Amino acid sequence: MIELPPRVDVREVGPRDGLQIERPIDTADKIRLIDALVATGVRRIEATAFVSPRAVPAMADAEAVAEYVRAVPGVDWSGLVASPNGARRAVATGLRTVEYVVSASDGHSRANARRSTRQAVDEVAEVARIVHDAGGRLEVIIAVSWDCPFDGPTDPARTAGIAARAVELGADQLCFGDTIGTTTPVRVWRLFDAVRAALGGAPGADAVPLGAHFHNTRGTGIASAFAAVLTGITRLDASVGGLGGCPFAPGASGNIATEELVYVLDDAGIGTGVDLAAVLAASALATELVGHPLESNLFRAGGRNRPRGAPAAAGDPPRPAG
Amino acid sequence: MIELPPRVDVREVGPRDGLQIERPIDTADKIRLIDALVATGVRRIEATAFVSPRAVPAMADAEAVAEYVRAVPGVDWSGLVASPNGARRAVATGLRTVEYVVSASDGHSRANARRSTRQAVDEVAEVARIVHDAGGRLEVIIAVSWDCPFDGPTDPARTAGIAARAVELGADQLCFGDTIGTTTPVRVWRLFDAVRAALGGAPGADAVPLGAHFHNTRGTGIASAFAAVLTGITRLDASVGGLGGCPFAPGASGNIATEELVYVLDDAGIGTGVDLAAVLAASALATELVGHPLESNLFRAGGRNRPRGAPAAAGDPPRPAG
Repeated sequence: MIELPPRVDVREVGPRDGLQIERPIDTADKIRLIDALVATGVRRIEATAFVSPRAVPAMADAEAVAEYVRAVPGVDWSGLVASPNGARRAVATGLRTVEYVVSASDGHSRANARRSTRQAVDEVAEVARIVHDAGGRLEVIIAVSWDCPFDGPTDPARTAGIAARAVELGADQLCFGDTIGTTTPVRVWRLFDAVRAALGGAPGADAVPLGAHFHNTRGTGIASAFAAVLTGITRLDASVGGLGGCPFAPGASGNIATEELVYVLDDAGIGTGVDLAAVLAASALATELVGHPLESNLFRAGGRNRPRGAPAAAGDPPRPAG
Repeated sequence: MIELPPRVDVREVGPRDGLQIERPIDTADKIRLIDALVATGVRRIEATAFVSPRAVPAMADAEAVAEYVRAVPGVDWSGLVASPNGARRAVATGLRTVEYVVSASDGHSRANARRSTRQAVDEVAEVARIVHDAGGRLEVIIAVSWDCPFDGPTDPARTAGIAARAVELGADQLCFGDTIGTTTPVRVWRLFDAVRAALGGAPGADAVPLGAHFHNTRGTGIASAFAAVLTGITRLDASVGGLGGCPFAPGASGNIATEELVYVLDDAGIGTGVDLAAVLAASALATELVGHPLESNLFRAGGRNRPRGAPAAAGDPPRPAG
């Protein structure tokens, strides 16, 4: 009835978006987690962020992490940056995929990067030059693509216009961030309709892959991700165990959990190349490293149903179940 | 692109499926919760279960609850039963919608009701007689419609066959239960395709409303519910706050949360008649009454995004966000 893509390309963002707000863990432990993620079969991993270590202490070891991962073959490793300076740091490590983040709303842009959306988007040109000169590929991530904690709902036309402008200035790929975990399936469709209409006019835009990045803050992340797949979006971010929530801020849930996304896609016959059991093993390691329970319901439930065979002669009293 | 129904009929199951595994709360408190649920605008509520008080102590006050709710107008109140005897108790209270639960798998049926699926389904005839003689309406709930904790996956043809047989024996409406919270969107579509094919041949089956009941045990409940809506299922169960998880069994998440379902449907322009703020107020009351945090992410996040206006002059260091 509804057409499904044969394959979805999952990006694991646990080492960056997942760990960003955690108490910093040792680089050696981070590398253990990264190794466990490589073992899942995922072939795109966001390794770190080249940002101020004062602002984000958990990413202070960006160069050391990048040094390690560039020697690990078979994975498209990426690093997030928020400025041309960050892009210079990223390419200096040899990372070839750079994510430059801009905020779709001025409120969020000013709070996070002390400048307007327009100023941040204008800098795509310079960041693209830095990345392309190093032989790299630039992804522009549009944060608060649906909603901003300061400015409220983002007009889809505004997000779409930013997308078109970013492509014009040199973005090779785009990713739309549901940064505060508010969007829902039909709003996902609306935004991608607007984005496709806006990109339709841009030269070379057909070749620009579109990705999406959802948080599960309001319990709707997997539904939104599935809705994105239904509208043909085949690049999705997810975080091992749903890492990304803040243990000190009640209600701040993390990214959609990689294992939950893979579980849904597996059942749909959509290939990901990611092994569910290996993701659950990585979630167990992540729990140990961050020292608190993770958000992932699938992980907490122990994974897929494991039928325990016919019950013994019934000694239990009857119990209704619906 | 994809057609959406104008309206979805939500059934609140918090007072029964939600409270069933909790430590029993006072009937007076249960009635406070029921009043809060009526105030949400929901027009179908599963009030209680007429089952063994030894097996389910939390439902020992079924008659008292039914006595209260039958005087509350404007709501289609229902009670769950697992036997003809339960149906007699239900109709004696004046409740007019009776839910009779059968298990799609023999393993689950034997564990919960000490009989095979076939024996349970055969009893639909007697239960229907009892309910219809009292002027009531019979819903047959098919538990473990997708997966059984003992027998593993349920063949869609088996669940569909049970559905057809239940209609033949007198069921006026059906509900398909994802009892252990394992199903996913594409499996939802497959089952409803099979059910519709099986019912296509049954006399009068066109007039039998189909509902679905999802748990969020593996984080996929809202995605499955949305998928059900996409395939034309417009009757969905949900529980205030996601009640239904067991505080003593890690990983046993509850029903999909009413507030998360309403949030997604509101955003889609699908009417429910249910007020989101009132559901969140009922979740706050439910938290107080059961004495532990609820599963609902939307509730924990404080509801919809409430934009706090433009940030003050930036004093915070820049922080990336995707």
